[in-house]
Amino acid sequence: MADQKARIAVLGASGYTGSELVRLLLRHPRVEITVLTADRKAGQAMADVFPQFAPFPLPKLLTIEEADFSAVDLVFCALPHATTQQVVKGLLEKHPNLKVVDLSADFRLSDPGAYEQWYGHPHAALDLQKEAVFGLVEIYREEIKAARLVANPGCHTTTAILPIVPLLEAGAIEPDSIVIDSKTGMSGAGRSAKEAMLFSEISEGTFAYSVGSHRHMGELDQEYSKAAGRPVTPMFVPVLSPMNRGIYATIFVRTTGANAEDLHQLIATYYKGEPFVHVLPFGQVPLSRHTRGSNMVFIGVVADRVAGRAIIVSTLDNLVKGASGQAVQNMNLVLGFPETLGLEQIALSP
Amino acid sequence: MADQKARIAVLGASGYTGSELVRLLLRHPRVEITVLTADRKAGQAMADVFPQFAPFPLPKLLTIEEADFSAVDLVFCALPHATTQQVVKGLLEKHPNLKVVDLSADFRLSDPGAYEQWYGHPHAALDLQKEAVFGLVEIYREEIKAARLVANPGCHTTTAILPIVPLLEAGAIEPDSIVIDSKTGMSGAGRSAKEAMLFSEISEGTFAYSVGSHRHMGELDQEYSKAAGRPVTPMFVPVLSPMNRGIYATIFVRTTGANAEDLHQLIATYYKGEPFVHVLPFGQVPLSRHTRGSNMVFIGVVADRVAGRAIIVSTLDNLVKGASGQAVQNMNLVLGFPETLGLEQIALSP
Amino acid sequence: MADQKARIAVLGASGYTGSELVRLLLRHPRVEITVLTADRKAGQAMADVFPQFAPFPLPKLLTIEEADFSAVDLVFCALPHATTQQVVKGLLEKHPNLKVVDLSADFRLSDPGAYEQWYGHPHAALDLQKEAVFGLVEIYREEIKAARLVANPGCHTTTAILPIVPLLEAGAIEPDSIVIDSKTGMSGAGRSAKEAMLFSEISEGTFAYSVGSHRHMGELDQEYSKAAGRPVTPMFVPVLSPMNRGIYATIFVRTTGANAEDLHQLIATYYKGEPFVHVLPFGQVPLSRHTRGSNMVFIGVVADRVAGRAIIVSTLDNLVKGASGQAVQNMNLVLGFPETLGLEQIALSP
Amino acid sequence: MADQKARIAVLGASGYTGSELVRLLLRHPRVEITVLTADRKAGQAMADVFPQFAPFPLPKLLTIEEADFSAVDLVFCALPHATTQQVVKGLLEKHPNLKVVDLSADFRLSDPGAYEQWYGHPHAALDLQKEAVFGLVEIYREEIKAARLVANPGCHTTTAILPIVPLLEAGAIEPDSIVIDSKTGMSGAGRSAKEAMLFSEISEGTFAYSVGSHRHMGELDQEYSKAAGRPVTPMFVPVLSPMNRGIYATIFVRTTGANAEDLHQLIATYYKGEPFVHVLPFGQVPLSRHTRGSNMVFIGVVADRVAGRAIIVSTLDNLVKGASGQAVQNMNLVLGFPETLGLEQIALSP
Repeated sequence: MADQKARIAVLGASGYTGSELVRLLLRHPRVEITVLTADRKAGQAMADVFPQFAPFPLPKLLTIEEADFSAVDLVFCALPHATTQQVVKGLLEKHPNLKVVDLSADFRLSDPGAYEQWYGHPHAALDLQKEAVFGLVEIYREEIKAARLVANPGCHTTTAILPIVPLLEAGAIEPDSIVIDSKTGMSGAGRSAKEAMLFSEISEGTFAYSVGSHRHMGELDQEYSKAAGRPVTPMFVPVLSPMNRGIYATIFVRTTGANAEDLHQLIATYYKGEPFVHVLPFGQVPLSRHTRGSNMVFIGVVADRVAGRAIIVSTLDNLVKGASGQAVQNMNLVLGFPETLGLEQIALSP
Repeated sequence: MADQKARIAVLGASGYTGSELVRLLLRHPRVEITVLTADRKAGQAMADVFPQFAPFPLPKLLTIEEADFSAVDLVFCALPHATTQQVVKGLLEKHPNLKVVDLSADFRLSDPGAYEQWYGHPHAALDLQKEAVFGLVEIYREEIKAARLVANPGCHTTTAILPIVPLLEAGAIEPDSIVIDSKTGMSGAGRSAKEAMLFSEISEGTFAYSVGSHRHMGELDQEYSKAAGRPVTPMFVPVLSPMNRGIYATIFVRTTGANAEDLHQLIATYYKGEPFVHVLPFGQVPLSRHTRGSNMVFIGVVADRVAGRAIIVSTLDNLVKGASGQAVQNMNLVLGFPETLGLEQIALSP
Repeated sequence: MADQKARIAVLGASGYTGSELVRLLLRHPRVEITVLTADRKAGQAMADVFPQFAPFPLPKLLTIEEADFSAVDLVFCALPHATTQQVVKGLLEKHPNLKVVDLSADFRLSDPGAYEQWYGHPHAALDLQKEAVFGLVEIYREEIKAARLVANPGCHTTTAILPIVPLLEAGAIEPDSIVIDSKTGMSGAGRSAKEAMLFSEISEGTFAYSVGSHRHMGELDQEYSKAAGRPVTPMFVPVLSPMNRGIYATIFVRTTGANAEDLHQLIATYYKGEPFVHVLPFGQVPLSRHTRGSNMVFIGVVADRVAGRAIIVSTLDNLVKGASGQAVQNMNLVLGFPETLGLEQIALSP
Repeated sequence: MADQKARIAVLGASGYTGSELVRLLLRHPRVEITVLTADRKAGQAMADVFPQFAPFPLPKLLTIEEADFSAVDLVFCALPHATTQQVVKGLLEKHPNLKVVDLSADFRLSDPGAYEQWYGHPHAALDLQKEAVFGLVEIYREEIKAARLVANPGCHTTTAILPIVPLLEAGAIEPDSIVIDSKTGMSGAGRSAKEAMLFSEISEGTFAYSVGSHRHMGELDQEYSKAAGRPVTPMFVPVLSPMNRGIYATIFVRTTGANAEDLHQLIATYYKGEPFVHVLPFGQVPLSRHTRGSNMVFIGVVADRVAGRAIIVSTLDNLVKGASGQAVQNMNLVLGFPETLGLEQIALSP
């Protein structure tokens, strides 16, 4: 039976998106984890780094150089920005039949100029950047099925793109009116030891960061502009909320004539039948907890007190639908598995 | 010595704004608390309701009917909406020389029509509504000094009014562009036992409430419109952040020609010398923790990536500058004490 | 296919153990939920009470009286203490072939005298009390397989019984030396709206409750005494830790001659091969997070600095292995399913 | 007026005990802060390191070498262990009239052998170790008044020593029966950037650390043994609770004949009139929140269900009475100020 399973490598298994991939893949009926890498923790067992995995058999952590990818079917790449493009380039040159789902930001911007503008240096793997498919399944499902390299979108961007794209495509909102205040839990910042990320600095407080210019805006611009058929540059501020998991975006828009109920209808129709997108009844808003630990996105639409204005709320778990869950969803498409396989878990609340 | 101190009553001492008043007043060198009321907890000691006060002598909790106000100089009224106007009316009829600082929303809207629109019923004390002074010290300091009845502003509104009024007065921003996403800690919701306020419902989550139409918008409209000299109806959404204390407002604006640095300059100049308003250097944003437990407001201004747009961040402790601290600040003015007396405490972080 | 599935009723579905049962059962491949009751929320959809279930089809909430149990195979009873014994008695009189897994404390004490002592009134269903099997799978697996009525143990008690029973059975520790400080997350207190359970009362604080005499001590006494072959009455204090999920017991013991490493060996041997008990290497202690959302118990044993003394740490998720997960584990045994079915989920951390 | 104030230096101002000292001293009417050191942040303003101080004038951070102590009256030393003894030795050699309140563990153990045993190396300033007074004011008040060097006790130890010393002195409890489970908030771990202290590792979890052998046990042994007149080696486990501030010790004891109410009486009598120790009525236990941000200790005593056993609960704010507040209390004694000066602040709850 085991030999029928797809063989999976996770690069960067010692971070939170890496451990979340392992959590999901260990329970996925059609895959087995055969390679785990983590450069700084190489030589350790996964259970040394994340003791919750102690009861389960897993390969030892290796450096990327030590790892053997010859029998691997698909690689999840959960490495830091910039490193990634080098690593993926090397991997695919050596193993051109590998499938790659990349969780970094390296292949999300299809325009090399936009990449250079946001990241301050030219892209090191232009061919792959061109080849990569933006892994937002609900919008690019067919392209992903055929892809070799999928660029898994960011957590803030998945949250903000899903509810707005249907409205821009329909011309129902003013593209220049969009304002996004996107609250995030702390796990999105990763596991590096930084003073500003200590419990004693974060608990019992809230604050905005990267105000005015956050790199993931490039993804918003790209997808919004594509949907609108013209350049769109929304206002966007990420805000830290003292919780582990969750993105909670409050999105303020002005309509081009439609009322808020029409916006709700557009979104609900667009995502009808989608297994991982739930649109609440008009006028209701979700809580971030309703998606915690699950691969769901919950979306609500409410009318503002002033006609022609609406508030859209979108929420998901940044480590699942905002990262590793969406990555597994992409893997399912790439490998021809049922899209929801291994992703059925329902939210924990409390 | 004690007979030189002002005698203070706190109505509604069993709520969080009530206990915060007691915390501050117990250490204020010029006052003594002589009356505490709490209808549902009448007969109990304050230490039964808030054990942190056990080491300190305090009068027993009474019903309002039992309380004797004949020797009281100033009353803090921390009662629920609507009850308040009846109670204050009765009190001032019987004791016309009393001073009152009201922490409810009952006397904040000077326009009876606006009151009726937001609260769904006519005001029961129209003369007092007319007489009341809006207790935002930094803007109405002189009027407050002469007032008998001060309407202490709300926590969301104090946070959002202070940074924006200077910009509207100067005509520096588009009045119709203002979008406010105002994160709040849980203590602002009070101490009533509601399922939705349980730890197990709030911790580890974030959510928006009263979306589209929150009653405190009436205060924003009133003060913004006054400052702009024309009607202003901002977009405003309050969002629950899983923390005890703090309001953290992200405010999105478009300028009328000025750049973000000009906005910063306008705000900094407006509040120069104010003891409780701190404007950060241009481009920096505060954390809500920087004001926790103190009477300070911290304000930051940042340029958006697109010219002509700016993000303004304003934060305070909802129980101090957003409620009881501002109420004591008002008391200090009304009673002729130095404005900062009893309010010197510096923020706790962590 | 559906007709081959076992038909399950959940009584008390509007509480946290109820919703946790629904979360687990919805993903269990061999059951379908056919009846949900919640007296005070009867008539509502489960999604009205717990919006995380909105995307999934579930029966409407009924009163127990409205519910039809004639086609039900097994009932989970997640009702308050005392109500339960009446309800279960009525159910089993009418449907003697029903299987029942009861999550209340009503059937956990096999001695009617002990029940009366701890609960202050005689038991109302003495025959059933006698019939009920204590549902601690790792200790009573065979009895449970044959049971009609399983009394699912409490969360504090599961945590404290599992590591200590092997030591008492082996005579390796002084029965009178046992001291248990058992930290618990807030969800164990349930979903009733009480002032003392508000976020603003719980967050950022820790406190002991039911000090000196907590009802669940009866379960500890019963199981410890049985294992020791003599009466044992441990010291036990439950302590609230400001988190949603988790029991974390620090257990202090004195040995009868063995050293701490021997204790570790006894426990590790006792639970060798158990799918839901993980014993850490000697000298290591777990974090409560390592079990969050999973059905695992993690146990650690450490030597004290003084010979002949040891500290044992035991932790689990109070809503899973401490309640609903263990209940599903019991169901699996009672219905002849593989014991781990539907319980494979790995802990969420963060 | 300013020239009458005592001039204070804070060494190690960039840590949490350092910032807490600054918070308290800035509002102390009889002192002024003239020197702040922080080796790794030297050259920065205090407001760069702790932005809550931005509104208040403070000296720039220096290295210890840069600082001029010639006009300083008292030094608070909030440096890491081991560094401290060198620094204090050097300071007092150069400025023998300086007063020093040391917040590290370096001078707390009066027995050089005990020091060497717990810290693994000989003490580098044996004369000073001998000279230092253990700064637990309620027990050593008169010695402290005359001291040049005060060793401020640890947070766990202050919490556990205060309630137990009166009982050991009276011979009312079995010295070998003492078991202490001491919950602590995260700020006690300091501000160094460590993976294990990240919000995403701490929030929503609880765990024990340094199990079996924690260095601060040396202080417990010393003070307990002194009180008992014989060697006492309690069992002690520190446990991390996911909160910022607070120590919450559950202490289990067996009496020598007295009942729990007698223990309560002994403690209450011992601390009668103490401004910072509050003993609750018999049978009641405090919450850690009741002391948050204040210099108070709250103590409760409860009878166990078995005669001859009792549970004692003791709680304080680890950064105030557990560190910087107690240090200021010591300073007040050393400099001849009223003991409570600058420490009047009442607990914040919520």
